[in-house]
Amino acid sequence: MPREIRLNAFDMACVGHLQHGMWTHPADRSVNYKRLDHWLDMARLLERGLFDGLFLADVLGVYDVLDGSPDAALRSAAQVPLLDPAVLVPAMAAVTTQLGFGITANLSYEAPYLFARRMSSLDHITGGRVGWNIVTGYLDSAARAMGLPAQGAHDDRYDAAEEYMELVYRLWEESWAEDAVRADRMAGIYADPARVRRIRHEGRQHRLDALHLVEPSPQRTPVLYQAGASARGQAFAARHAECVFLNGGPAPAVAQQVAALRAATSRPIRVFVGATLVLGRTEAEAQAKLDDWRAHASVEGALAHASASLGVDFGKYGLDEPITAESNAIQSNLLALARAGGGLATKRTLMDQFILGSRQRPMVGAAGRIAEELIAYAEATGVDGFNLSRTVTPACLEDVVELLVPELQSRGAYKTAYGPGTYREKLFGAGPRLAPPHPAALLRR
Amino acid sequence: MPREIRLNAFDMACVGHLQHGMWTHPADRSVNYKRLDHWLDMARLLERGLFDGLFLADVLGVYDVLDGSPDAALRSAAQVPLLDPAVLVPAMAAVTTQLGFGITANLSYEAPYLFARRMSSLDHITGGRVGWNIVTGYLDSAARAMGLPAQGAHDDRYDAAEEYMELVYRLWEESWAEDAVRADRMAGIYADPARVRRIRHEGRQHRLDALHLVEPSPQRTPVLYQAGASARGQAFAARHAECVFLNGGPAPAVAQQVAALRAATSRPIRVFVGATLVLGRTEAEAQAKLDDWRAHASVEGALAHASASLGVDFGKYGLDEPITAESNAIQSNLLALARAGGGLATKRTLMDQFILGSRQRPMVGAAGRIAEELIAYAEATGVDGFNLSRTVTPACLEDVVELLVPELQSRGAYKTAYGPGTYREKLFGAGPRLAPPHPAALLRR
Repeated sequence: MPREIRLNAFDMACVGHLQHGMWTHPADRSVNYKRLDHWLDMARLLERGLFDGLFLADVLGVYDVLDGSPDAALRSAAQVPLLDPAVLVPAMAAVTTQLGFGITANLSYEAPYLFARRMSSLDHITGGRVGWNIVTGYLDSAARAMGLPAQGAHDDRYDAAEEYMELVYRLWEESWAEDAVRADRMAGIYADPARVRRIRHEGRQHRLDALHLVEPSPQRTPVLYQAGASARGQAFAARHAECVFLNGGPAPAVAQQVAALRAATSRPIRVFVGATLVLGRTEAEAQAKLDDWRAHASVEGALAHASASLGVDFGKYGLDEPITAESNAIQSNLLALARAGGGLATKRTLMDQFILGSRQRPMVGAAGRIAEELIAYAEATGVDGFNLSRTVTPACLEDVVELLVPELQSRGAYKTAYGPGTYREKLFGAGPRLAPPHPAALLRR
Repeated sequence: MPREIRLNAFDMACVGHLQHGMWTHPADRSVNYKRLDHWLDMARLLERGLFDGLFLADVLGVYDVLDGSPDAALRSAAQVPLLDPAVLVPAMAAVTTQLGFGITANLSYEAPYLFARRMSSLDHITGGRVGWNIVTGYLDSAARAMGLPAQGAHDDRYDAAEEYMELVYRLWEESWAEDAVRADRMAGIYADPARVRRIRHEGRQHRLDALHLVEPSPQRTPVLYQAGASARGQAFAARHAECVFLNGGPAPAVAQQVAALRAATSRPIRVFVGATLVLGRTEAEAQAKLDDWRAHASVEGALAHASASLGVDFGKYGLDEPITAESNAIQSNLLALARAGGGLATKRTLMDQFILGSRQRPMVGAAGRIAEELIAYAEATGVDGFNLSRTVTPACLEDVVELLVPELQSRGAYKTAYGPGTYREKLFGAGPRLAPPHPAALLRR
């Protein structure tokens, strides 16, 4: 039997997520991102396709590095305007019973007491179907929106994140003992005060002295996702993450990343790798679809996004001028991009890679062949599944559900029914709560 | 024709809201507060009864003044544990099309940039059905949960609230011009950058330099509710509120309050007064229901709540010992309570008023007679409707929908269908947006 493949849909509550410009395709429905039925239909479709989850990205601030202005991002709707992803989850939970929901939340700007309550509330009402993609943000524009001159330095953000995690773990896991809620109508006792503990915390970033406002939810701590690629990010993932997102790339390099992640912790880690699929019943149909979609790619949106992600204003460069970056990390990113594009890091080589308006090269082909490629990739790398970014939506997801999933199933690489229980139980086949040696589990009484 | 009466349901995402102890009644379903179907069923019921809205209270912190501990509140589930009300709204919006949703949010602890985005997101996905009950909080336990030694002084909180309102108005009304979103697929232009403005604010409490992340929602600013009873609270309401909650009481006193509110502003103001109903098909049936429910009232929960609300630890007093308070405002509250109880302000006179576990005296009777009382009260006071607190739930709301609403309708005092449009349009019969002279409307371009 091949390795089981899991699928997540990767989306964002906005018009243009990663594949910029696709909203201009006549079949695309991304402009309905602010309508509830758009998301309800998507949740039903994903559950029909036995997706593990829908992951909603989020970013505070706007992409204003290109030409030093947000204009390109606004024109191309590159992640702006953007709704709060947390408001979509309860509605989708109302029309599904199995699908998991991951949301990205930036711990640099969320008060831990309020954030912990919101996540616990979501975990209750979804019956334990919530995950959290932990991010610390990377945009100065977000810092300015929050009244700060600029974001903190990368490693300082990770220090603050460590403190934040400890604090929310204490609220989620320590404040209410497992047997705190009695709900005894005859005795008139709802909770046993002796089993509810005040959390007192005085740290560098946060102070708090409070009970957690919410009784234990099915999972207590939401399923923890992380995507940090830096050394510090990897150490953070090894300590906290249950699932890790990787950007993807050639199998040998990803296999190495996966092995390093798994070697860094004794806990099981599920790894999802980003993928963009263009599927057809035949190779020709898929290729025609790519050509059709590609005509709608927005280079402007892709440049606005890439400029902000890398912190390099591509507007300053001529088409064939070598692009240089101040920091070594960014320069090495640029070189990697240039290598992928087969040449120097220039605006032209970069733009050549925006096949569907993003830097991620799509996998294009007949669903059966793509199924085999995904299976082979999972075998070669050890990843557990794929995080599928949207192109022309919902057509791209309908293709996955109708064409790809049956091909994966017929090869024994995809489930034919959901497993029981919460999101965590479905992912790991164990209990609904974090287990030792995870640091959160050690706080539970 | 009698004055039209509007109904709101007043609830909270917890076991015990105002009528403490009712959850111990065998027919009560409040313990299901953490299950989505509980709220979906309630939303459907309220929409069937043509309620204007469901209002969800919220309070950060716990009631820990009685005996200097949260124990009584925890035992009796007096507003603890408590979910984030904002997570319930999207789910209920998914199963209704007309019902409005009000949520209480404490502006002392919410970052304006994030809060404005959340409310705009809710307004979009509900199709303009969102209201905000503006509060500044009153519990030291909330301040401690947020890392502060104690809450700010009453008038300082209102100063901060004025700054906060200006800032969120600018995000909601000024940042995106009415014609900023073009969504032009052919031109590939989603938003016109020239019509999106950065908001820069440097105030005493907040700094911000950002675009609002969300394009204009149906109502832009949610319907604004306020309940402040102090002179400063009334001035705040006159400037900002579209709807005001009053606690209720004898008609002449309420008529005076309503007249003062309306005299303080040239804008139309809808006034909702709190009411607790115990309804039957006959007087005897209603009285039997009261007796049955009353046997489940929790004096402990009521004391915990009242102690925290008044800031007086009733645990220190003997049953018949006169209760004294340091502040004049609290002492006058106590005297008012004592007068209502017909004697001295003592724990016994206070406890005698906890008929259904709260200080609000229920209206008990056959639905037809109660309908006439409500109509007469509305005529005598000029209030627009009633904010109905839950007792034994959902039985109490089923009684309203099945018994009271038809009686009001047959007397021409209640709508027989929803009006068109957003929550604001349904409330005021005008447009979906705030209109001048409201300060928010003046910021719109």
